[in-house]
Order: sequence, then C-alpha cells, then structure tokens
Amino acid sequence: MTARLVADAVFTVDPSDTVFQPGAVDIDPDGLIAWVGHPSERPPALGSTVHDLGGVVMPGLVNCHGHSPMTLLRSAGDGLPLERWLNEAVWPREVMADDDDVFWGMTLGADELLSNGVTTTCEQYLHPEAVVEAAVASGIRCLFTPGIFNVPGAGIAGGWQTHLADACRIFDEMDGREGRLHIGFGPHAAYTVPPEGLAEVATESRARGALFQIHLNETKAEGRVVQERYGVGAPALLESVGALEGRVLAAHAVWLTDDELGLLAANDVAVAHCPGSNGKLGSGVAPLGELLARGVRVGLGTDGPASNDDLHLWDEMRLAAILARSVAADAGAVTTPAALRLATRGGAEALGLPVGALEVGRPADVIRLRTDDPRFIPSVDATELLGHVVWAGAGYLVTDVWVGGEQVVAGGESVCIDRARARAEVGQRARRLLET
Amino acid sequence: MTARLVADAVFTVDPSDTVFQPGAVDIDPDGLIAWVGHPSERPPALGSTVHDLGGVVMPGLVNCHGHSPMTLLRSAGDGLPLERWLNEAVWPREVMADDDDVFWGMTLGADELLSNGVTTTCEQYLHPEAVVEAAVASGIRCLFTPGIFNVPGAGIAGGWQTHLADACRIFDEMDGREGRLHIGFGPHAAYTVPPEGLAEVATESRARGALFQIHLNETKAEGRVVQERYGVGAPALLESVGALEGRVLAAHAVWLTDDELGLLAANDVAVAHCPGSNGKLGSGVAPLGELLARGVRVGLGTDGPASNDDLHLWDEMRLAAILARSVAADAGAVTTPAALRLATRGGAEALGLPVGALEVGRPADVIRLRTDDPRFIPSVDATELLGHVVWAGAGYLVTDVWVGGEQVVAGGESVCIDRARARAEVGQRARRLLET
Repeated sequence: MTARLVADAVFTVDPSDTVFQPGAVDIDPDGLIAWVGHPSERPPALGSTVHDLGGVVMPGLVNCHGHSPMTLLRSAGDGLPLERWLNEAVWPREVMADDDDVFWGMTLGADELLSNGVTTTCEQYLHPEAVVEAAVASGIRCLFTPGIFNVPGAGIAGGWQTHLADACRIFDEMDGREGRLHIGFGPHAAYTVPPEGLAEVATESRARGALFQIHLNETKAEGRVVQERYGVGAPALLESVGALEGRVLAAHAVWLTDDELGLLAANDVAVAHCPGSNGKLGSGVAPLGELLARGVRVGLGTDGPASNDDLHLWDEMRLAAILARSVAADAGAVTTPAALRLATRGGAEALGLPVGALEVGRPADVIRLRTDDPRFIPSVDATELLGHVVWAGAGYLVTDVWVGGEQVVAGGESVCIDRARARAEVGQRARRLLET
Repeated sequence: MTARLVADAVFTVDPSDTVFQPGAVDIDPDGLIAWVGHPSERPPALGSTVHDLGGVVMPGLVNCHGHSPMTLLRSAGDGLPLERWLNEAVWPREVMADDDDVFWGMTLGADELLSNGVTTTCEQYLHPEAVVEAAVASGIRCLFTPGIFNVPGAGIAGGWQTHLADACRIFDEMDGREGRLHIGFGPHAAYTVPPEGLAEVATESRARGALFQIHLNETKAEGRVVQERYGVGAPALLESVGALEGRVLAAHAVWLTDDELGLLAANDVAVAHCPGSNGKLGSGVAPLGELLARGVRVGLGTDGPASNDDLHLWDEMRLAAILARSVAADAGAVTTPAALRLATRGGAEALGLPVGALEVGRPADVIRLRTDDPRFIPSVDATELLGHVVWAGAGYLVTDVWVGGEQVVAGGESVCIDRARARAEVGQRARRLLET
C-alpha cells in the first residue's frame, strides 16, 4: 500500500522535535515512512490513499515492559507488596492458566494497548506460543521475551532450563515473523534464576543478537535476598556472569546504589521505568533523573494490568514526569518534550527497535488523536499543543492506529481483533482463575 | 422530582464502604437521598422515574481546590517553577482577563468537571460575579472563595481590602443560591496578604461560618519568604492572627515541619492535596500519609488547568495513592478504599459539605460510570470492582451526573451548558490572552 496521513499537526519526535502544522506522513508499499512534511510541499505519491484525519498524528507509544496476558488477573492482590502479591495472588493463579487462557488474555491486552495508542509492546510471559499467536493476530508490534525462571513452590511448570530451550526454539522459528514479531529472552530476575542460568541465557541471547530482559532491583526486599544469597547485589552478579553484555533491558531498576547506576551506564544497559506499577505495589521510586543524567537509555513500561491496572501508557508518561519533578522539587527535572520522548523514541531505543519517531525509513507505526476535547483548548501554538498531548493526552482520544503501515485501529474499532469475543473469553476465564 | 437510579453496583462510600450489587438510589422531591439499597428490597416511590442505568453508581467526586477559569491558560508556562510560573505566565495574563473571559473560562471548566464526574468544586478566583454566574448556570455544586490578595507589580486590580469587601458582599447576597452555591473567603497566601489582612479575613469568615481557604506552604521558596519576612512559618503566622480558628482549608500543604503538621491537626485545619499540580510545577510531595495518620481531614484538588493540565480528579485520586505508596515504599500506605474516600467523602468533610457519600438525607450528588470497557474486565466481586474504579477509573467512563437530584449530564451531554459555544469562546478569548 501507499498512503498519506494528513493531520492538523504532526509530531515527529525526531532529534529536533519538529512539528508540522498541518503535516503529512507518507507510507511506502513496504510500510515504511517515505516522507514527512507540510502537505503542500509535496503531492502524494500516485495511487496513494489520502487519509484526511485532522487532529494530531504522532509516533505510536512504545511499552517497554508488560505482562499483558495478566488482563486475566487485573486488580488481583490489591494492597499487597510485590513479594506477597506474587506468592499469594499471582503465581498460584498463573499456574492454573492454560494456553487458551493466555491467548485470550494477551488478545485483550493487545486490543487495550493498540486502542490506547501503544503500537509496540515488550512482553515477558510464559506460554510462549499462545502469546506469539495472540500478538501476531492482533497486529501489534511485539518484542516477546519468553519467561525463564525457577519459582520453588509456586508450581510454575518447568524450570529455567526448559524455559530457555523453549525460548531458543521460539526465537529460531519465529523471530521476524510478519516483520513485527521480535523474540528476546526473559530471565525473570536474579532471585528466580541461578547464576549459571543467567550466564547461559546471556550466552544464548548474545549469540542471536536478541534482547535479554530481566527484572532488576524492583524492591528493596529483592535486593536483600540477592545480597544475602550471593554476597553481591544483582547488577554486580549479572556483570560477573557476563549478563550485562549485549542488548540488556533492566525492568524497574528502582533500588540502585550509585555504583550500580554507574554499572548500568558503563554497560549501556537500558531501563524500563514502570512508575505506575512501582507505585501501586509500593516498590519505590526509580531514580529516573539520575538514569537520564548518566545517559542510560530509558523507556516506559506499564508492567502487567494486575499492578497498574490498565495498559494506558499515557498515564506512565505523565507519572514519570510528575514523580521526577515532585521528588526533585524541580519543575525542569523531566521536561515535557523529554516525557514524550520517554514514551516513544526513548522506549524504542531502549528496546533497540527502529520505531518511536516519524522519520524517513522507519516503520510507519503511527497514531492519530482527536483534539475535539476540552483538554486541547486553547491551542495557540505547537508548544501548547505538545503540552496538551503530554499533560492531558489520553488513550480515549486515540482513534486510528497503524503498525508497519497497516491500519489496525480505525475509528476506535479494532481491525484485527474480535473485541467482543476477547472480552467475553477473558471475563469467563478470569472467573475460573480468580474464584479459586 | 422523585427518581430511582438502578445500577449493577452502587458504591455508597458510607463509613463501612457498603456496596450493593445490584443497587438502587432513591432521590426525594427535595433532591436528597431518600433510600439506598438492593432494588428488590423496596419498590420505588409512587410516581418516581426509574433510571435503569447498569454500570456503577457512586457519589460524585469532590474537588477541594481549583481555579477552573484558568482553562483560558491551560498549559501556559510549562516547565517553570511556581514562582516564575505565576509571575511570568499567569498573573500578567490574568490581569488582562475581563468578566466575560472568566465567565466562559469557568463555564468550560465546570463542563469539564461535571462531564468527568466531579459534582462539587471548591474554587478560588477573582471576578467573583462572573465565576458565580457561570457556576450556577452550569449546575455544579460550587464552594466559591473569592480571591483576596495584594500582588505588588502584578497589576491585579484592587488590593486585599477591596477583595475582602467584595467577598463579604458576595457572601451576603449569594450564599446558598440554588441550594448549591456556597461562598467562602479565599485569602491567596501568607506571602500575598499581610498579617492584618489575614486577621480581618479570618474574622469576617468566622462571623459567617464560612470557609477560609488559603494556599499554604506550596513550595519551599514560599516557606522561606514568609520565614524571612515575619520570622515565623506561615502556619504559625496564621495561628498568631487567629486565622486557624473556624473552618480553614489549607491548599497544597507540601512543605510542613513536624510542628506545623501538629499545628494543623490541633486546629482541625483541613488540607486540599493537589499531587498533579505539585508534580507538574515541581513543588514537591505533600506528606499525605502523615496528614492522614494525624487525623487531618484531607481532600483532593486539581488546582487550575494551567498546572495539571486537566480537571480529571480521577488522576489525582490515583496519583495520591501512587505517590504515597511509592515514596513510603509501602503498598498499604493509602489503601484503595482510602483513595476513593479522599476523592469523595473525605473531600466533602474537608470542605464541610454534606456530600461525598450516598447516604439517606445527603444531597443526591451522584455519578454513573459505564463499565463496558476492558478496564472493568474481569469483575468477579465488589473488591475487584472497587479496584477497577480506583486504579483504572476515568472521566471518559462517566455518562450521567446528578447534582442535588437534578440531572446535569445525560448520556455524556451537558444538560445546562452550551458546550460548543463555551469551547469556541474560550478558544478565541485564550488566543487574545496567550498571544500577548
């Protein structure tokens, strides 16, 4: 296909934060961005479909850390800290979930992500085939890192060796499918995978140039467990087994000493910042300002809908800025353009994917927001409009979504997903899991 | 009128957090709640209109601190700390606003509040007649505290004496109008009203049993100014002039010493907690946990839409819990029912108004949320449903709103406000203010 998207404003999120008012985005037959500019500067390509959208067009949001099949457990274990939440509310129920449950959980999650403007999601979960099938069918861009871990007593099927073998097979069979499925490796954490397991996972992921995604220092208690068991903190443990080399993404990274911040920066480890989940579970406040100041690549994550409780990344964007500014008592701590970057380009850089910005040659992962809402009044110039997008933007304003140039949400409706069935399936399946 | 509202679930927010599934709320001809319970327990009163709503019915949210006419300046001065934001982006523009500007600004703000489920708003602003007329016409319950202050150099018309005389007149003429207009006194802050002014305002408000609402220790810098000028902090200064007696509401209350926390608690001073605004302006994190632990009455405030940038109190509810939990690293710091209470009953208690809960004899300030959204899947029991309302609730889910038993939003549409005109007026008038 070739298409031109025309809007009242196009936010490119390119390195100079260019905004075109009005603006146009041309998409080539391979689903890549062919051109961005003022619509009068260049006529649309011959035979292209012109979508006269009005509103704001911008890059799709990038979710760097999710467990989206957990729509099945939305809101479970409310009020518990992470450790009790996992052991009492989550793991005992997850062990009862089968492939079909996870397929529908991921389908509903992907629908929620897409319809709220998230075009890429980095996922970690078990039941890899079910997650992959649901993600591919939904039309979302997914970097899936199959979960790898031992949880003694929690009854999760298999151990890290089985999970790692599965992940290698999934990578070899499925990476690159449809041009929008990317496979990585998801060792759960330094307290649930032994050091030799971390080393092996790191070796396998490096051999494939794949992302190694791990929960890192999410809570203070987790830090203590690793320290007591191995005599060093998790970042140093990972480094000692070679697991900070290659493409590494640390999810959460809340409790870091100054040395550990330095270790992440020196190894170019990226961070998925999950302020909503860290807040709801009382995990703590990640040092976003310090991470950015050290040049760490940071993106935003919703985490799973059981600890958030939704997949609206707009909330995380605002929360990241609000937390950083209020904790530092500094209105400039995370600027408005910086907040938008975290949710788009920054997230893409953290994942190592060429999305998150409207620039020639990148995949056309594009969203359109309607602006006929009081949140967009007044709109005098581009600076204000950016302010509205960041400080008052919301998923319910997203009407149209393209992934790799293919329209997957049109007028608020999902193109690929049987939404009514997904809702019914999850409602029913969740009842089985939650009532036991 | 007599009416019965029937829903899949009714959250009463009564002292025992009773939830009826399904539930019904009966409204008597005076607009008061006549009965709440399971619909099969009692037939509706003869001649009453039955609204079979489905979804969730709950008390309208209570906004304890707003400057809603600032829809005119939404997003202005982004990235500036409070002092520069006021002096550079806000006051120089507010001085140019006339009564008609403020009327339309307040009208658009009231529409945004109501359509997002806020049924009561406590406002502080100048141009009192314009605010009152807009609030009354909109159908919202408004506790309006006309602004009283001297801002040397900022060119705001009049000084504290003029503003106080206006406020007394407004109170005497208008308090109680339509049963949903309440007048108080709004001395801006201890750094913008001299001690003798604070004393006089306190005397006048106490004489009328009216609310005395003041910005208190919003930023660290503000605390220093007061300390340097008067040799004591603002809370002690207020106490020394008798301004902590009577019905007092402290807006923000971010920077408080232990002694100052004690002073507020001992004087039964209520607090309007504004986490969104305090975050955006980098003012700091108010000690919500400590305030609640000392028994201080706390409600939530949006502050003005120039520092938020919207009037969706749902965000403040979630943010209050997230900030308290993450700063304390304690998942139980503000429980889910406590968060809902802050946004409803707690806010009403902070303002001294008998709203914020669905109990017999209270004014029927009621909202209805649709639940046909993934945010409400799964919904197995009342605990989960409460989790969804608090952790994934949002203004866009509000479809119907009653204030004092009168329906003011029906199917998402405003009953009282010419929404299209309000949007056009604010868009146009804001352009004049922002472009200069």
